[in-house]
Amino acid sequence: MIKRFFTEQAIKRKDVLLGIGDDCALVSPSERQNIAITTDTLVAGVHFPHETSAKAIGHKSIAVNLSDLAAMGAEPTWVSLAITMPEVDLQWIEEFCIGVFELCEFYNVQLIGGDTTQGPLSITVTAQGLTPVDKHITRSGAKPGDWIYVTGEIGDAALALKDIFNEVNVADEYREQIRHSLDFPPPRILAGQALREYASAAIDLSDGLISDLEHICTSSKVGANIVLEDLPISNALRDSVSMEEAFDIALVGGDDYELLFTVSEDNKVGMETALANTGNTITCIGQLNGSDKITTTLDSKPVPINAKSFEHFSQNKG
Amino acid sequence: MIKRFFTEQAIKRKDVLLGIGDDCALVSPSERQNIAITTDTLVAGVHFPHETSAKAIGHKSIAVNLSDLAAMGAEPTWVSLAITMPEVDLQWIEEFCIGVFELCEFYNVQLIGGDTTQGPLSITVTAQGLTPVDKHITRSGAKPGDWIYVTGEIGDAALALKDIFNEVNVADEYREQIRHSLDFPPPRILAGQALREYASAAIDLSDGLISDLEHICTSSKVGANIVLEDLPISNALRDSVSMEEAFDIALVGGDDYELLFTVSEDNKVGMETALANTGNTITCIGQLNGSDKITTTLDSKPVPINAKSFEHFSQNKG
Repeated sequence: MIKRFFTEQAIKRKDVLLGIGDDCALVSPSERQNIAITTDTLVAGVHFPHETSAKAIGHKSIAVNLSDLAAMGAEPTWVSLAITMPEVDLQWIEEFCIGVFELCEFYNVQLIGGDTTQGPLSITVTAQGLTPVDKHITRSGAKPGDWIYVTGEIGDAALALKDIFNEVNVADEYREQIRHSLDFPPPRILAGQALREYASAAIDLSDGLISDLEHICTSSKVGANIVLEDLPISNALRDSVSMEEAFDIALVGGDDYELLFTVSEDNKVGMETALANTGNTITCIGQLNGSDKITTTLDSKPVPINAKSFEHFSQNKG
Repeated sequence: MIKRFFTEQAIKRKDVLLGIGDDCALVSPSERQNIAITTDTLVAGVHFPHETSAKAIGHKSIAVNLSDLAAMGAEPTWVSLAITMPEVDLQWIEEFCIGVFELCEFYNVQLIGGDTTQGPLSITVTAQGLTPVDKHITRSGAKPGDWIYVTGEIGDAALALKDIFNEVNVADEYREQIRHSLDFPPPRILAGQALREYASAAIDLSDGLISDLEHICTSSKVGANIVLEDLPISNALRDSVSMEEAFDIALVGGDDYELLFTVSEDNKVGMETALANTGNTITCIGQLNGSDKITTTLDSKPVPINAKSFEHFSQNKG
């Protein structure tokens, strides 16, 4: 089984000396590059609904890891894939592989190893990527006064989860779009690489905007204010719930896998030009400050962050 | 929780620029080295009995991966650790960490990242190591006429499993020893590095001697004969079952994590001297040939491999 789906794939990267099939894979990184390494596990029923298609699970397990590499500004190179599944289901594996390999091929990433074991469905991926020496982005370089940006639109994935749990009424015309956002998140690889020269800090949106911004604020020892009316909320979200709920979902929903990043005033124009060349839309959603907390404003008036919906989401997501 | 046990560990390797706590870890491999990468998952009830101590699970999850690096001749450097567990149990995690960090510190390996998720207990580790360019060992370099060697003794781990399942009568004096072999397998790191210059092929014994030898034979397109009376069987195994059963267990039992390797006639003396310096005992257990199968002999007479016990073990191990 392993042989049929994994061993027989061609090795397409020159820096992969040995792929799947020996005790280890062997890679030969080019000199003057550092290696970024990240590991994420997806558990059925926790990180994706049980009904999720095999192809989507394959895509998402790779995408959430490439998304971490993107937040570092790394160029993804090699992934290892550990699948635990209840039983050998060849059709499931075949569709899972389509999701995995479509994304790997698009970004020239080589699957170099893995393991298949029997047990409740879960997927652990370790993804690696290269960054030029001294050209990576961390969470800890942000300064008071830096502008806060986000790529794409946020809230659709969380809306799709709420729709699955029958907590919202989503119009039929939006269902496919939001489900696609949840199942096939886009790792913002090109945006991340373009940001190497400009961003003072970056993170990918997995836990939710406020949670992930907190990570930057804690690591960089800064505070932040988010301007609610500037949040890039999709039409689906805007049309499905009240404006107040839409803000809540956008702030705490998570699973967007867009990049949240900060840029100094001096780097703003350069960054906007560089990002425009990658085809990514970006939105300025607030500014860092010298406080030790995160606040939100609407029409310049302070609005408290809804702690209840924050907790609710955290629980749903395990 | 993650912070308490993982983030606060000191970074001891100079080639680790960023450890746990950002989107990715960042490492800076030295030039003229290749990187060996391996991933293994351990599932509770499949790869270790449910009753296994947290410390043993921690040790074993790292050890089985370092063992793959050893079989490649690599020097272990960085590990990523993904833990899925049913609930947060701080005492369990603390003991698990002792098992992990004792082994990591002994081999100067840095834990660089990971993930903790909720679900049925399973551990996935990705371990990486360095090999000098063109100085790694694969499964595919063996030639007819090469001698087959194994480090240490084999069969104790499998005997311990049979003891847990009440399939054998083990004398009390041996119980602790064989349980230790099962729970705390030793990755043969120094032996692996010493073999870089001498071995034509190597693999670590996880599935069982015959299965793992088959991997070398298939990759190298050779056959093999094992001399049963030369197998390094422990006193515990010898005293607990009949000689015939002992051979069966040693051949198909697995979980030994000793190194199985092949050496040409010309490299035999050099290898034996180099290995003696590492403190590892080694035993020559047979020779490769030009056939396409694996045979066993006892006092120079052919003995068929017991296919039934082979299958039985495979099922027990999932």
